[in-house]
This record gives sequence, structure tokens and C-alpha cells, in this order.
Amino acid sequence: MIRIDGARLLADLRRLATFGATPDGGVSRPSFSPADLEARVWLAERAAEAGLGYREDAAGNVFLRLEATDPVDDRVVWTGSHLDSVPNGGPLDGALGVMTALEAVRSLAESGLPLRRSVEAVSFADEEGAYGGFLGSKAAVLGFDHEAIRAVRGRDGDLLVDAMAAAGYPPERIAEARVDAASVAAFVEVHIEQGAVLEEVGARIGVVTDIVGVLRGEVELVGRPDHAGTTPMGMRRDAVRGLAALLDGLEGLPEAVGEPGAVITCGRIDVEPGADNIVPGRAVAHFDIRHRDLDVILRIEQRLEERARRAAAAHDLSVTYRREALTEPVPLDADLRWRITAAADALGVARHVMPSGAGHDSQVVAAAIPTGMIFVPSIDGRSHSPLERSRDEDIVAGADVLLQVLVGLVTDVADVDAGQVVRSQGAGR
Amino acid sequence: MIRIDGARLLADLRRLATFGATPDGGVSRPSFSPADLEARVWLAERAAEAGLGYREDAAGNVFLRLEATDPVDDRVVWTGSHLDSVPNGGPLDGALGVMTALEAVRSLAESGLPLRRSVEAVSFADEEGAYGGFLGSKAAVLGFDHEAIRAVRGRDGDLLVDAMAAAGYPPERIAEARVDAASVAAFVEVHIEQGAVLEEVGARIGVVTDIVGVLRGEVELVGRPDHAGTTPMGMRRDAVRGLAALLDGLEGLPEAVGEPGAVITCGRIDVEPGADNIVPGRAVAHFDIRHRDLDVILRIEQRLEERARRAAAAHDLSVTYRREALTEPVPLDADLRWRITAAADALGVARHVMPSGAGHDSQVVAAAIPTGMIFVPSIDGRSHSPLERSRDEDIVAGADVLLQVLVGLVTDVADVDAGQVVRSQGAGR
Repeated sequence: MIRIDGARLLADLRRLATFGATPDGGVSRPSFSPADLEARVWLAERAAEAGLGYREDAAGNVFLRLEATDPVDDRVVWTGSHLDSVPNGGPLDGALGVMTALEAVRSLAESGLPLRRSVEAVSFADEEGAYGGFLGSKAAVLGFDHEAIRAVRGRDGDLLVDAMAAAGYPPERIAEARVDAASVAAFVEVHIEQGAVLEEVGARIGVVTDIVGVLRGEVELVGRPDHAGTTPMGMRRDAVRGLAALLDGLEGLPEAVGEPGAVITCGRIDVEPGADNIVPGRAVAHFDIRHRDLDVILRIEQRLEERARRAAAAHDLSVTYRREALTEPVPLDADLRWRITAAADALGVARHVMPSGAGHDSQVVAAAIPTGMIFVPSIDGRSHSPLERSRDEDIVAGADVLLQVLVGLVTDVADVDAGQVVRSQGAGR
Repeated sequence: MIRIDGARLLADLRRLATFGATPDGGVSRPSFSPADLEARVWLAERAAEAGLGYREDAAGNVFLRLEATDPVDDRVVWTGSHLDSVPNGGPLDGALGVMTALEAVRSLAESGLPLRRSVEAVSFADEEGAYGGFLGSKAAVLGFDHEAIRAVRGRDGDLLVDAMAAAGYPPERIAEARVDAASVAAFVEVHIEQGAVLEEVGARIGVVTDIVGVLRGEVELVGRPDHAGTTPMGMRRDAVRGLAALLDGLEGLPEAVGEPGAVITCGRIDVEPGADNIVPGRAVAHFDIRHRDLDVILRIEQRLEERARRAAAAHDLSVTYRREALTEPVPLDADLRWRITAAADALGVARHVMPSGAGHDSQVVAAAIPTGMIFVPSIDGRSHSPLERSRDEDIVAGADVLLQVLVGLVTDVADVDAGQVVRSQGAGR
């Protein structure tokens, strides 16, 4: 069984973390920033060093290509993630997937194995949302026309098209980034877990079943602002009383619908007028509900709305519930899940089957291409933070699992004769 | 029994409301603003018209003086409130007290009654806190030196001393505003209730017993910010869960300590980091507790702190309670309370004995001078709002009660031979 070069991978990860490094050990590397562009130059050097082709598309996606030595199927295998980070994020989110992809493809190149398909290590542009999020994966897999991105503004208020043009990616050509999905046999993304479940269960690899769906909803409670000194307790219509009744014990909702694995979070609360000496007349709370099953999400939303109505009635408030956004769950490819599980087992690495609670490029790609994800444990569950770290041995294990999966995908193309070729033909190749 | 001129009083109130009028029927007239200075010019004209002396002191307080015709006691009687308003406030808060004072003093002047003491209608500067609050009453009764106000900044960040100088009140002379408290026999303030208790009980006059004490406290709950998608419900240290447990049912605390008349308000909540997709790691809630009895306030504070500790323990959070400020309750003068009650009864006006839940110049003055307060009902309890109104007949009744109290204080000076002369002598006159 061939293995990746762990020392080389870890050195590359450390080097990549210097592009956009912050003083506290974090990384700020939004897409199209100088740090991002410098990281691409460095990545191109790594590709040249390893004898891989380097290509960027019109959306700013990067592809490092290892050509098939012994082509049987002209579909390519993708692996990767994203180079960009959140502001003051960590050194691994996205970066781990790109560096393990580079390392696994390099190791394949060095292995001398007959490669029946080409493989590309991919870095998708703007996963983290400096300009909306999933820009690169959407442009490649779903396609964007120029009109669709004309008005998109970044976190700092600048136009995406200006940022792209300044970075050397003419925005009017973004439609050219679209790839024929049928030309990609599979996509495998390695990513940090961004949670502490793997640590908790003692596993070193997460085999991802689904990307959870995300529902965002808002509850508005309206009473009456009154003077906090002159209004007796019995004469108040205090929006915070209703809010407290709504929130207290809300964490029991997933259990109450029989799905303790679902999550509901209230991370944002606005109280108005927000003065110490005024009975609050209005309170708005924002909710985030996630699960791999859309029906579970909708049942929790219904309970949330019922609780809000009861809380409002009990405290003489009016109430409005608004669904703000719904991203449906995305199941990942069962065959790839099986391949990842088998690879972990072959390597003797403890694995845990789990959904992804966070969003990833994989959820976009999975809409058109068989997609699998490999999680590497996050120390103490930290992510989107300068404290984001994983153990070296877990990083190496994740890359080795990826390599085994790639070996299977490019050396044994029995699937071409089985199910996948049908799908490929069905897509009109 | 002499009466005030209701039509004249109401016309003056309407006219005063034009200084700083806002388009929605409200008033913005902070101290030392152009609107405030214009209102003073108009007030000086009213004084001249009524044959009253007009004087301003170094703090910007205004005194309209009616000289004793038949002096027996050289102590003056004060009545009044403040001309300044909160930003976008109403036409009555403060203004009612100054206009009823003017009207009552005018009526006294016209009555031909022998006046054994002089009377002054007073308007104290900056009660509402454009520059800290209670500026004028504190300068007059407690005294300020120039150093004490040098660094005071206004709501808009400007220096109080600059605002005073620009308005024509040299700040370096503010110490001169101090009055010998022993030279003032009594202070009576008419004010709107700013609540809806009088409406609720069907009374037209509030006889104020005390100004409640106000305690401000802050509870900080700290857990851990985590990804809202990747952190299972059982692995969270969610500060909002603790906050909800603390707040839910908090309105029962006054009842729980056997004092349902006490009030506790949570009008300001800060949740951090405040993102929809992050489990909130920190929540801070601000509390306002009021009652006429300091001991009751402290008992409620203790229960609040206990609840906060229990809520934190139940949700694996750390907790800090901080007392931010404590203004002790101020009892008003029992003799003046009796005089107000007797005047209301003599006029056949239904009265209700009650504390003031809001702060007033009276609480400052009462520290050194016998002080009484007369409340006029607020329609629907509205105040600090363009919707702030009182019924005309209640305004007139309030002014008539004030006039009866003043008649007693300036025509029958038996108190000089009884208790009050002792206090006056005790103060070294």
C-alpha cells in the first residue's frame, strides 16, 4: 500500500499558513486578496516541482493536473477544497483539503501505478464568502453568467467584479468556468471537522454521509416600550419576558421531535429600544436549525413557531415568525462513502460515520458529481479561529485515506463497466 | 378659594411646546440648545408681564420671583421643574412643572393675598441629562466647583463647559449657583406621572411619598463560542441558554420577596459573537431594580444574583454579577405630602398616594430642602415620547392643587413657630 509523505505535507501546510498569517497564529486570506494571489504563485511552483499541470479558470479556481498514464476512462477525478479563509481564521479550513489533495496527487505521480484516469487537485475560489461564498464551485459545477455576479458585493462593500478584474480574472468571462459535470467521475474533499465529535468518540477519520440542511428563521415579539420605573410589573407588555419564555429550554426541541442529533441555535438577539430604563417593547431572535433530514428541520421549525406563539400569548405580545432561508440537506455519494470507510479500515484508522454540520464546496459539487468527504478531527472542536488546529498524525492519516481512495478510483475502473458509465452515458457523453 | 387661570396655563403650555417642536408633535429641547435659550427669552417676557422678577444663575437655572408683600419669614418657597426635554420627547415632562409654577405664582400675585414669604417659580437646567442630568438642581442645592464639570461631555460628545459658555453661562462661575439651603422653606414640583397607575386607579392627582431608589446591575454569562452546525446540542456551553433560564419568570421576583410594588427590568441584552451560525459564547444582561425601600432593592438584587448563579451552573457557564450603580431612595417631606393631600381633598380632586418610579429634580433638592411632588396623570402612561399627553382638566387640577399648597405656605407661616424654624436654626441661620 503506497503512502503519502507526511513530513512534506506538514511542511507545505506550515508554508501555506504564512500567506495571510496574522500575529496571533491565525490566517486572513480572503479570495482575490494579495495573500490569496501569493499563495497561488507558491502553489503553481509546487505543481511544477511535482510535474503537475497548473491551470486557473475564469472564476479563479485552480486545477493541478496529473495526466492518466494508461487512460481507459476520459473522466477526471477531482480532489480538493479551497485556499481562502475567513477573516482571522485558522490555518486548516480549506487549506487542509488543498494540501492533502496536492500531496495525494504527488504521491500517485511518484508511485508509478498505472493511472487509468487523470486526477486534478482543485482549489475553489471564495468558499468562505468574502463575496457570497461557494463562488468557484458554483461557477464550475452550476455555472454563472456575468449578469448574475454584476451586483455582488463583498463583506467590505466592494464589487466582486472589481475584485476579480483587479486579481486578473476578467469577470465577463466567468461563464467559461463551467465544467461539463459528466466529465468528472468523482470529487473527494478532505476537511477539518470543525466540531469535537470525532475527539469525543475517539475516531481519527470522519466518513461524511450528508451535508446537513440549514434553516434560518426569525421570531419577532412586539409589546410596548414603557418607563422602567413608572410602569408596575402587572401593567407591562415586556418583549423580553416573551423571549425568555420562548428560549428557556429550547435546547430540548431536537429531543422532543425524536431527533437528538438535530441542532437549533439562537445566536443573535436584538432588544429594542435597548435602554436600561425602558421596558423593552420589541425583541427579535434569529434561529439556525440543522439536520440531514429536511422533514426533521421542518418539524423543529413548526415546534419553534408554536413555542413562540405560546410565549407571546402568555405575555400579551404580538408575534411574527419569518423563515429567512432554507438550504436543503445534500446526501453524499454512497459508493464514495464505502470507499472512504474501506480505506480507513485498510489503514487501521478508527473512523466514525457522521453528517457534516457545516457547509462545504462538496454540497455544491454533489448536485452534479458523485462526491465524498473525509473529516480530520479538530483539536477541541475549534475552527474559524486562530486556535484552529489538528494533530499531525490525524492530518497524515486523512491524507493517506484520501490517497487510498484515489488509488481505487484511478487504478481500478471497474465502475466504468458498472453503474457509473451508465450515469455518464445518461448525461450524454 | 382662589383658582388658577386654566385657559392661560394651557395656552402657555402650547406656546412653550413650539420651542424645539418636532414634526411628529414632540419636543427636542436639550439644555443650552437654541430652543432652550429661545424658551428662556419667552419665559422672561411672561415674568415681566406678570410683574415677577427674572433671574438666571451661573448654572443656567431660572428663577421667577414674587416678593413677599408682608414678610414674616425671609425663607423663599420654590416651585418648578425643568424646561429641557429628552431628544424627541413630549411637551409636558418638566414643562408642566415650570408652567404650573408660573401660573400658580401669577395667580398668587393677582390674588391680593398678603404674602408672608417670597415665592420663586424655578426651572432647573439639564434635568434630562444632555450633560449628565440634574445639573441645575445639583449646582443650586449641592454645589459644583468648576473642576467637577470640566470633563463632563454631552450625549453628542461635546464638552458641557463649551455648551455653557456658548449659551452665555460662564462655567468657571458655576459654584456661584449654590444657594444656602436654609434660605429655602420648601420646594414643590408638579410633574406628569410618566406611568399609567393614576389612570388605572381612577385618580387625578398623585401625592408622591418617595422617589424610588434605582439599582443597576449587570450579569455576564460566559460559555464557549462554537460552530452552530458542527457542535451537538449536548456538547455546547451556550450562554443564551443560561440567559433564558435566568430571565424566564424573572418578573416574579418582586412578588417572591413580598413586595409586588417593586420593579425589575431587563431592557438591554448583548449576545456575542452575535452571528446566526455561532453558538453564543457570551451574554450580558443589564438590570434595573427600583423600590422606595433600599432593603427591598437589595433583597431583589440578591435573588437576581442567586438566579444567575443557578442558571450558569445548570448550563456549564461561568457567571459574573456586577452592581453598576445605586441611587438610594429619597423620601419626600411628610408635611408637604399632607398639604398636597389636603389641597386635593379641599378641591374635591381624587388623589392617590404613590412613590415616583422615575427620577426628578425633587430627589436632589430633597437632600437639603423640604420637598413635595404632585403628579398629573399621563394619558396611556406615555412619556419621553411625542405621544406624551395629559388631559386638560387634570393639568388644571394639578395647578390648582399646587396653588392651594403655595397659599398655605406663604400666607400661614405657623410652621415658623413650630418644627421648621428649628431646622432652619439648626442649619446655622
